[in-house]
Amino acid sequence: MAFEKLIEYFLKFPGIGPRQAKRFGYFLAGTDKKFAEELAKLILEIKKNVIQCQSCWSFFESAAERTSNNCSICANLNRDTLLLMVIEKDVDLENIEKSGVYNGKYFVLGGAISLADGAKKQNHLRFKELFDKVQKEMPKEIILATSATIEGENTARYIEKILEPVNKKFHLKITRLGRGLSTGTELEYIDSETMSNALKSRK
Amino acid sequence: MAFEKLIEYFLKFPGIGPRQAKRFGYFLAGTDKKFAEELAKLILEIKKNVIQCQSCWSFFESAAERTSNNCSICANLNRDTLLLMVIEKDVDLENIEKSGVYNGKYFVLGGAISLADGAKKQNHLRFKELFDKVQKEMPKEIILATSATIEGENTARYIEKILEPVNKKFHLKITRLGRGLSTGTELEYIDSETMSNALKSRK
Amino acid sequence: MAFEKLIEYFLKFPGIGPRQAKRFGYFLAGTDKKFAEELAKLILEIKKNVIQCQSCWSFFESAAERTSNNCSICANLNRDTLLLMVIEKDVDLENIEKSGVYNGKYFVLGGAISLADGAKKQNHLRFKELFDKVQKEMPKEIILATSATIEGENTARYIEKILEPVNKKFHLKITRLGRGLSTGTELEYIDSETMSNALKSRK
Amino acid sequence: MAFEKLIEYFLKFPGIGPRQAKRFGYFLAGTDKKFAEELAKLILEIKKNVIQCQSCWSFFESAAERTSNNCSICANLNRDTLLLMVIEKDVDLENIEKSGVYNGKYFVLGGAISLADGAKKQNHLRFKELFDKVQKEMPKEIILATSATIEGENTARYIEKILEPVNKKFHLKITRLGRGLSTGTELEYIDSETMSNALKSRK
Repeated sequence: MAFEKLIEYFLKFPGIGPRQAKRFGYFLAGTDKKFAEELAKLILEIKKNVIQCQSCWSFFESAAERTSNNCSICANLNRDTLLLMVIEKDVDLENIEKSGVYNGKYFVLGGAISLADGAKKQNHLRFKELFDKVQKEMPKEIILATSATIEGENTARYIEKILEPVNKKFHLKITRLGRGLSTGTELEYIDSETMSNALKSRK
Repeated sequence: MAFEKLIEYFLKFPGIGPRQAKRFGYFLAGTDKKFAEELAKLILEIKKNVIQCQSCWSFFESAAERTSNNCSICANLNRDTLLLMVIEKDVDLENIEKSGVYNGKYFVLGGAISLADGAKKQNHLRFKELFDKVQKEMPKEIILATSATIEGENTARYIEKILEPVNKKFHLKITRLGRGLSTGTELEYIDSETMSNALKSRK
Repeated sequence: MAFEKLIEYFLKFPGIGPRQAKRFGYFLAGTDKKFAEELAKLILEIKKNVIQCQSCWSFFESAAERTSNNCSICANLNRDTLLLMVIEKDVDLENIEKSGVYNGKYFVLGGAISLADGAKKQNHLRFKELFDKVQKEMPKEIILATSATIEGENTARYIEKILEPVNKKFHLKITRLGRGLSTGTELEYIDSETMSNALKSRK
Repeated sequence: MAFEKLIEYFLKFPGIGPRQAKRFGYFLAGTDKKFAEELAKLILEIKKNVIQCQSCWSFFESAAERTSNNCSICANLNRDTLLLMVIEKDVDLENIEKSGVYNGKYFVLGGAISLADGAKKQNHLRFKELFDKVQKEMPKEIILATSATIEGENTARYIEKILEPVNKKFHLKITRLGRGLSTGTELEYIDSETMSNALKSRK
């Protein structure tokens, strides 16, 4: 039945459990027809209009007369092409842009290496595309901006290994975001690693 | 732009904030085309197939050749038509059916009277429909199964007031679900009202 | 060392973990001498003055010239001696008294039968004292007011078994607190058992 | 009465509300006499034996034959006397020592400047003692290791102001712990300040 099937689809949405999926179903059943029609239309529309930048792999909405396969950041001539920040997800990019502190380029990896699967089974992560882009564009510095979690650290280490050959040849600078006290950290609860990093990078 | 507009639509979903709405957007952007097309199709389909029972106002999915405007519970001849349970929402109905302890009929009110608005502004609640149904079907007992919250209590009291004229004339029995210790209640934390009810209904 | 030893003692307090136990230690180290002296004095004092009622086993503070071994509730001639409510803990008694809805007597069992240990290893629970009290005082009704948890239900059932012989002989009434919707219960989340009870005890 | 008074005393313990204070009271009432006596003894003992280091103001337990007014860290000749880390609380010191990454000396300020009171009303904070210690001992570097909260930042700024005169004269180095990604930080949720710091301190 369509209702059960729709709920199964909502269950695949990120962070949605059975109870909320069902609530979505009843919400749509109770909503007016125009809302549902417009929603369905928009869902189809973004599959057409939202495309993946062929340079950084972020999603972006293209204008009607598509002139470029690149997102506005990649197309922006004022951004520093010598800096390439590798991030896990589109929302990371959006959040960093909001902070307004970075003016280089990005590369969206598509996630981090999961602990369960390891690096081998990560076909959805764009390691090859990253290698190709680095070799082709030769940025001066590659900033590995993965999360400060075990998954993020593993991913950063794996990227370093992948880029080693091209790095050896061309002496790129591969960096990681600085570690230390993040906003809100209290010394009473600080872990050894963060304390050690915060002490080393004191100034 | 379609992406921003889609996120606005997701923001109207129950329990969804800006962060999750955006995550939904990126999820759909990154999902394969077939998933999006099927989802859009299902959304349109349930607007066509999922209809509101003209007897109890619950949502249900009608078969292809629609023979009835009534849901399977209202159409079920084995359910006790002398018992009518008034509930707030479709999910309440579903949860009570799952418990398997009730064999009467239902009436879905559409919510409870919100504290902010009061009874006057509750155009989305089916008080009139309830009055009509009771007058027409003359159940022997009407069980007001609203939640044991202030909103639920207010709603039950308001229904009692509405049904007073028909009640006076025909001596219907209007009941409420029993109050007392619910599963998990500890005496250390019990409130006066629940304690009082639990004591009165001891057996 | 005294500091470590004190922290070990605080760790035995109900609900206190290592971090808070340590915080208590530093708090006392930093507090003024008078506070610590008064606290130590009070701890010794309540061991002297707070005694256990020999009738209901609740803790109470006796006046200087002790005239009775009974708490103020047991000594109160206006309380209904035909009603005996069996509760798990002193805090339950206090909470029920606060609700002001009960005017009978109490019996403090000392806890509930833990799932891990079963009924056999419950030497700290006063089943024998309850049996003796019931046989001696012959209340008309014994209300088993244990919590609506598995432990509480097991405990109530075990008491029923213990009191069976005296019950058979003298036809006491053994009741339990009524089950149903407690304040705050929403129908969307109600469990089968509570729904079933609420339906049976509707009125 | 002693019981109520004891509960009032427990209410002054850090993080303890009325319910838990009462639970502590019943716990002590129900505990055996030896436990209470030993607890009272320990409370008095730590007021005698746990003293405040006259050099760093941390609490420590002195040996029977007291030979020094200094804690084991201040008395330790292997610790680097040229490094002075200013921290808010004793538990901070303990946590940093546990990390094993710091080998200098400490100064326990006694807390942070609260937002409500401001710097004026902070008589319990040892700003004067810090000034005196710095002027007397002339460490090469003073690390302001307050928390990365508004209160911690305000406190660090206030200390910088206080130490300005002596700093100007003797060119001490006043540093703060490095800011950046702390363990667990995800880029999706990072705040602008942490992102900015993490970017600047990348390596």
